[in-house]
Amino acid sequence: MSANTLGTLFRVTNFGESHGPAIGAVIDGCPPGLPLSAEDIQIELDRRRPGTSRHVTQRQEADQVEILSGIYEGRTTGTPIALLIRNTDQRSKDYGNLLTTFRPGHADYTYWKKFQHRDPRGGGRSSARLTAPTVAAGAIAKKWLSHTFGTVIRGYMSQLGPILIPFKSWDDVPTNPFYAADASMVPELEQYMDALRKEGDSIGARLEVVAEHVPPGLGEPIYGRLDAELAYVMMGLNAVKGVEVGDGFESVSQKGSQHGDAITAKGFETNHAGGILGGISSGQPIRVSLAIKPTSSIRIQRPTINEQGEELQIQTLGRHDPCVGIRATPIAEALMAIVLMDQALRQRGQCGHW
Amino acid sequence: MSANTLGTLFRVTNFGESHGPAIGAVIDGCPPGLPLSAEDIQIELDRRRPGTSRHVTQRQEADQVEILSGIYEGRTTGTPIALLIRNTDQRSKDYGNLLTTFRPGHADYTYWKKFQHRDPRGGGRSSARLTAPTVAAGAIAKKWLSHTFGTVIRGYMSQLGPILIPFKSWDDVPTNPFYAADASMVPELEQYMDALRKEGDSIGARLEVVAEHVPPGLGEPIYGRLDAELAYVMMGLNAVKGVEVGDGFESVSQKGSQHGDAITAKGFETNHAGGILGGISSGQPIRVSLAIKPTSSIRIQRPTINEQGEELQIQTLGRHDPCVGIRATPIAEALMAIVLMDQALRQRGQCGHW
Amino acid sequence: MSANTLGTLFRVTNFGESHGPAIGAVIDGCPPGLPLSAEDIQIELDRRRPGTSRHVTQRQEADQVEILSGIYEGRTTGTPIALLIRNTDQRSKDYGNLLTTFRPGHADYTYWKKFQHRDPRGGGRSSARLTAPTVAAGAIAKKWLSHTFGTVIRGYMSQLGPILIPFKSWDDVPTNPFYAADASMVPELEQYMDALRKEGDSIGARLEVVAEHVPPGLGEPIYGRLDAELAYVMMGLNAVKGVEVGDGFESVSQKGSQHGDAITAKGFETNHAGGILGGISSGQPIRVSLAIKPTSSIRIQRPTINEQGEELQIQTLGRHDPCVGIRATPIAEALMAIVLMDQALRQRGQCGHW
Amino acid sequence: MSANTLGTLFRVTNFGESHGPAIGAVIDGCPPGLPLSAEDIQIELDRRRPGTSRHVTQRQEADQVEILSGIYEGRTTGTPIALLIRNTDQRSKDYGNLLTTFRPGHADYTYWKKFQHRDPRGGGRSSARLTAPTVAAGAIAKKWLSHTFGTVIRGYMSQLGPILIPFKSWDDVPTNPFYAADASMVPELEQYMDALRKEGDSIGARLEVVAEHVPPGLGEPIYGRLDAELAYVMMGLNAVKGVEVGDGFESVSQKGSQHGDAITAKGFETNHAGGILGGISSGQPIRVSLAIKPTSSIRIQRPTINEQGEELQIQTLGRHDPCVGIRATPIAEALMAIVLMDQALRQRGQCGHW
Repeated sequence: MSANTLGTLFRVTNFGESHGPAIGAVIDGCPPGLPLSAEDIQIELDRRRPGTSRHVTQRQEADQVEILSGIYEGRTTGTPIALLIRNTDQRSKDYGNLLTTFRPGHADYTYWKKFQHRDPRGGGRSSARLTAPTVAAGAIAKKWLSHTFGTVIRGYMSQLGPILIPFKSWDDVPTNPFYAADASMVPELEQYMDALRKEGDSIGARLEVVAEHVPPGLGEPIYGRLDAELAYVMMGLNAVKGVEVGDGFESVSQKGSQHGDAITAKGFETNHAGGILGGISSGQPIRVSLAIKPTSSIRIQRPTINEQGEELQIQTLGRHDPCVGIRATPIAEALMAIVLMDQALRQRGQCGHW
Repeated sequence: MSANTLGTLFRVTNFGESHGPAIGAVIDGCPPGLPLSAEDIQIELDRRRPGTSRHVTQRQEADQVEILSGIYEGRTTGTPIALLIRNTDQRSKDYGNLLTTFRPGHADYTYWKKFQHRDPRGGGRSSARLTAPTVAAGAIAKKWLSHTFGTVIRGYMSQLGPILIPFKSWDDVPTNPFYAADASMVPELEQYMDALRKEGDSIGARLEVVAEHVPPGLGEPIYGRLDAELAYVMMGLNAVKGVEVGDGFESVSQKGSQHGDAITAKGFETNHAGGILGGISSGQPIRVSLAIKPTSSIRIQRPTINEQGEELQIQTLGRHDPCVGIRATPIAEALMAIVLMDQALRQRGQCGHW
Repeated sequence: MSANTLGTLFRVTNFGESHGPAIGAVIDGCPPGLPLSAEDIQIELDRRRPGTSRHVTQRQEADQVEILSGIYEGRTTGTPIALLIRNTDQRSKDYGNLLTTFRPGHADYTYWKKFQHRDPRGGGRSSARLTAPTVAAGAIAKKWLSHTFGTVIRGYMSQLGPILIPFKSWDDVPTNPFYAADASMVPELEQYMDALRKEGDSIGARLEVVAEHVPPGLGEPIYGRLDAELAYVMMGLNAVKGVEVGDGFESVSQKGSQHGDAITAKGFETNHAGGILGGISSGQPIRVSLAIKPTSSIRIQRPTINEQGEELQIQTLGRHDPCVGIRATPIAEALMAIVLMDQALRQRGQCGHW
Repeated sequence: MSANTLGTLFRVTNFGESHGPAIGAVIDGCPPGLPLSAEDIQIELDRRRPGTSRHVTQRQEADQVEILSGIYEGRTTGTPIALLIRNTDQRSKDYGNLLTTFRPGHADYTYWKKFQHRDPRGGGRSSARLTAPTVAAGAIAKKWLSHTFGTVIRGYMSQLGPILIPFKSWDDVPTNPFYAADASMVPELEQYMDALRKEGDSIGARLEVVAEHVPPGLGEPIYGRLDAELAYVMMGLNAVKGVEVGDGFESVSQKGSQHGDAITAKGFETNHAGGILGGISSGQPIRVSLAIKPTSSIRIQRPTINEQGEELQIQTLGRHDPCVGIRATPIAEALMAIVLMDQALRQRGQCGHW
């Protein structure tokens, strides 16, 4: 769980840059015998893919995944699964001084401070494009969790900038590009985004991710708690600035008599905890919320400096998502799946049962 | 970064149960040559210690730390620093059916589901008592960071249940048991807590933690980002249900032109980012907020079940904190220190500079 | 598996110095429910203990282990097991210039080069005394392996300096201080050691360690192979300079038709492989050999330098083992047990069976 | 350091199967700014490449490496370096019952026991072909070590079956396919190999690997010692059955007065230790020896069983190395380089100097 690898027993190692030859991941530790095809992975990649509506970046990437290893006769062998996605739409253009000027709110500046030598083209390693390998790895975890426990992991957008989006039905989510769980909100969301694009500005969003049919007992306190690892991966998603489990920040003003979920012979009566107690899953649905900040690459001019420390104005004209939250739902689902699968294997390793 | 060990190069391994013989930690990877005494650690332990005001648990623990290894002639040797804290106030009493009955909102239930065999006395391993070794380890990290970069890590309570506590001055924080940064709020807080204790209920809280004088370049995206690791440790603190970096959930309704911190030759103009961009420290102060839920051990009767699945009522009469948030500030500071120090060593390892 | 922690799922963190207050270990990841008492551990510690014959160091250490955590009602809880061994026989004496002079062949010099500040008393962290916590941890692994698979792990000395010691019977091993599997050799060994002590010199030894009833399937190629991890821990034992699996260096002059163990319906016909093929256990007995160098602390004067780079003569008069190999058998058994248990848990985690 | 990843700060993740689409590695943690091209890596791959003399496998693989990430304008960026090598010579043939029959001495049997579902074509994951990504990663480590310390890592074959090959000169090594350091031995070696091929048998070998200009202070006792990690990677190399550091098994019959390397103001007088004391590098050349067993795939018929447990005879007619030791020298060099680089970064991380 450091640098570019995620997980202890189910391990995802991510590589690539936005404008390099390819991006991808090596997934190590997958149990043998799981039926797996490129299509299983492609379905999730297509949900995250850019260019599918006018509200997201117009970069055209097929994001076609190739499985390089770890599968034999349609099933996993327990050896590393290497996934390759070629970059196909790196525009060769004159970047001008953009490569050496720091966008306010962007990782440009900190990558330069850390590494001194960096690939700045299209954001390089810091690009949200690098969430594609995570999604691909998550597709494997989702499939294994579904096969093993019947786990269902789903997310939706609950807020776009100032607009609250109520939960109506999971059925609505795949019908619109916003992952809204109330399709009747879509015209309002589209109108908001169209105006935003005209301004050249960007906006934040809030997402909810829920995992159902998760066995109790997952999580390794202290420190390898399930909620801690979910916070780790979610805060690690590009542009995320806040993470909640269960009632989250609402818990601050709750009393214990209200927050603690009463237990009956039939199970828990409520789920303020969001499915996790003491860092270990309780068997209830796991609920996580994310705050996603507005994209830092905007058309509006902003004051900044360049690598030489000179002050200047910057304006980002490239093909950027005005709301990165729109495409983030499948990524957050993937991250939750990776954590749950890793914890499940660890639980089986130590305790021999789920 | 799994189970009971935290960190990659600066590693803290935590052990112990609330009512066992002792608790403690082994700190591995500390650079040699750092002046370190038991007093350096005791100061921080005393800040977290129970029984220091009527608003916290009345358990009386000296929390006296003994250094077992890793120090020679007053300085660290680079070998593991083992810290031992004996438990002295484990009341030997008849627990009755409390040991096999699950408190709503408590880890009792999930530990039992995970391990089947568990030490239930005083919460066993899930007790907040196990934050003491974390605080002890954090004292070492704080000292090293201070020596190396002049880093200052401080926290305060910004909300107690429904009461917002404004930031007035760091000077006020050590003057009151709430870690309030506005001492004029103390009478209102005391009144609230006194009423709460009478009810037998508990309440949540919100904390802020700030690290100043942190060098830029700390953090290893992707996945080992600085913000991700801070979220990991903070969400892993007992009772935490939400974590924010910088503007956190307020970012949801912000536009990019507002959120992105403009840069001038003199530095950043604002700090919406909370000192971290793209998972790497920018050199600005690092700001983190935590939501802490109300304690699950309350005097008010609640419906629950026991290990046999029988329904019954539970009431927790022990010596519990009615607001765990009150004693959490030094713990959150310690966790931030551990993460920053570990990332600093990793940065020096890979890049050879800070 | 770095610095002072060993293992992935079954993790041993070792701490302490030869003349500090205490040594010990934290064992994390042990499955819950294993019956375990201090006596189970003490038995193995007593086998390694100094001062039990005139052929080993006369330092008198009770090596009394205290279990600080992880056990409840006589069984493991799945939480960290902290083990404490107080140092009781640190002679307070005037070390003279010994503390700043490097013994030829000793870690004095390299610890100083690495850490600059080190605890030199009695070898500090580099002392073979630090194998005691490893033995303690190994006792837990041995017990779990025995309970789970009926695994038996035993070692013996096969060579003392120039004297080859044939294998006659496991029954002979516990009857003599040399761990010789042929008790009739003991007079010759005693005579050799008595002469050696008179000279003030030291001597090397060769050990064999065998694990029987190990399930097939343990090992994670590539790189986490079972043979690789055994080599790792064995070479990591103080004074070890060579490790072999199965036929070891004899394989160099063997042909494939001779080395490859033929398989019949009843099992393998031979065991040149030493129970490991392609880095994975085959179900046959696992055989490992170690070369142990002569102790570097000898009474004979040797030329050396001190911390100031000045040339001088050194002579070590302390209480040292003239052949560290004599007490190394229980340590090597412990190391093998730790590796096998860790690999078994990893195998169960990934593949769900043994 | 588990499963398919090697290293703590400099991490190599290996993927692929002998007859799958591709093999490769992701190298994480390389310092930024190192000049690196595909040619730097190709040179080492070409040294390991099959088909370059009649004494090795006749499989024709270009082993052309493609760098997918981590390099910008000819220098490393500090982000993961992904390396891809396409498999081009997977013969599509009728394997007959070979895929379900276990070769004596081969990993076929244990992979099947471990994973139950495996890719058996050409040995699948257990093939020595998977050492190519290790060599590629090692090329990067070699270059960094050379740039940083002037480290030179070289190996040679010191024994082929019964034939001892004396060390005459490093200059002779690249002049012959055996990596013999005495070119006058080549006719005898060729004659031996020609006779062996006619028999259809295979033979073992012994290699020496030496690293010069290694700074003192590398290694993290206990347990992450430099010698332990070298033993780990060397024993993990396909077909290795024994590893020695310095005098290795000769130490068994040495006395302390002979083995301990005397130190003068000018440095060490001898190097029995092989450059490592107490698990930490001393600054002297690091010397390691390996025992490599004979290839298990031979033309001579052997008794074995198949997956159904039926007894039968097996004969391996494919294109196999009659002595895997011949091509192992560059692999062993690569492994030593990876360990040294990782330890150097860890040393800089903890201690801030080399």
